[in-house]
Amino acid sequence: MSKINVSVDCVIFGFDNIEKKLKVLLIEKKINPYDKDNTGKQIALPGDLIRLEEDIDESAKRVLFSLTKLNNVYLRQFKTFGDPKRVQASKDQEWLKNFRKEPHERVITVGYISLVRMEDYIPVPSYFADEVKWVDILDVPLLAFDHNDIVESGLLFLRNELNHELTSELLPRKFTLSQLQELYEIVLDHKLDKRNFRKQVISKGQLKETDEKQKGVSHKPARLYTFKNLN
Amino acid sequence: MSKINVSVDCVIFGFDNIEKKLKVLLIEKKINPYDKDNTGKQIALPGDLIRLEEDIDESAKRVLFSLTKLNNVYLRQFKTFGDPKRVQASKDQEWLKNFRKEPHERVITVGYISLVRMEDYIPVPSYFADEVKWVDILDVPLLAFDHNDIVESGLLFLRNELNHELTSELLPRKFTLSQLQELYEIVLDHKLDKRNFRKQVISKGQLKETDEKQKGVSHKPARLYTFKNLN
Repeated sequence: MSKINVSVDCVIFGFDNIEKKLKVLLIEKKINPYDKDNTGKQIALPGDLIRLEEDIDESAKRVLFSLTKLNNVYLRQFKTFGDPKRVQASKDQEWLKNFRKEPHERVITVGYISLVRMEDYIPVPSYFADEVKWVDILDVPLLAFDHNDIVESGLLFLRNELNHELTSELLPRKFTLSQLQELYEIVLDHKLDKRNFRKQVISKGQLKETDEKQKGVSHKPARLYTFKNLN
Repeated sequence: MSKINVSVDCVIFGFDNIEKKLKVLLIEKKINPYDKDNTGKQIALPGDLIRLEEDIDESAKRVLFSLTKLNNVYLRQFKTFGDPKRVQASKDQEWLKNFRKEPHERVITVGYISLVRMEDYIPVPSYFADEVKWVDILDVPLLAFDHNDIVESGLLFLRNELNHELTSELLPRKFTLSQLQELYEIVLDHKLDKRNFRKQVISKGQLKETDEKQKGVSHKPARLYTFKNLN
């Protein structure tokens, strides 16, 4: 019987309503924390090894909470990555040997996707991250291990599953129909016809008009909406 | 760092076109293979521990092939099950202690779903199964570990993803529209309106009429169809 290291990695998406960009939360970690002259860094998804008696969903919650102090946000397992060579590239081994006893050993990782309102919190560094930052999904750099593949898979999952429940996790609680359409267009990466989009979202009956309008805009302020049955 | 046993378990679905039932392939294994007086058996999903240098998709293919001798069938990871207590029920420990050195140890399992044409092969026992049999999804008995939950999750996945690509894996290569509707009704577990169903499947443009009709039926033989762009 062969035992294997198991980790979780979280693809945490946020929608920047000011810059109109879909962003992913990445961490930075020094390649050698004991060598002050070595300024090399790895950029990666937030993640950690599973603890011996910890449920995998709990591991993902722990990772997410340690960076964001958020509980009760959308967090869902989407795929497990099990290539036996996924941590063995030389760029990764140089890093791993500084903090693992057996850097060559295989690690299977369970990928989770999380959706957060960027306005709700400021991410903070954690025991597994020297720095943490939001990066535009279009500008993701070379990441550690197979993390670029994991981001890509997470994005495909988000596109396939995109619906009102998910958009409500990313938008402010009150939003205009233009904001809703922008979010769909940015996640799906293509333009949508305004009239058809509005007809469709309204016909689904999940939107509720509020009495409020946009504030602080130079154009005619638009009506604000919320989702029904969602907090 | 804590290493963990990792396995794969396969929910292999087949559609019985004669009995009109969705079935799942289950294995039986003696609780104590060395005690001839003990006739107790466990019923479980086909699965095995991952080998040290084996990709997890390859593990699932190995398990599927060893029972069915089939390659190139639909096989997709759908969820990883990571409750730390999932193998520790007393009913399971009695069994595990007969063939594992450390029966109490945690096992994380990666669930795969497979869809096969039952007419294409006869399942055979394997190194991890004394017997193998098709069981109606409505009559699944108490299974080992959390395998009833895994079957349930696999069925939900199939329902959510059900589309022409998936149905084409379960139906004979040529089928009548009634057979197609029956499959949808049985997987989704509710009746569909015949006229709406036909309108919808035909409007999607994925069906191709053949020149052939049903044979050996007592009623008026119906037209046979195939899916376009599928073998």
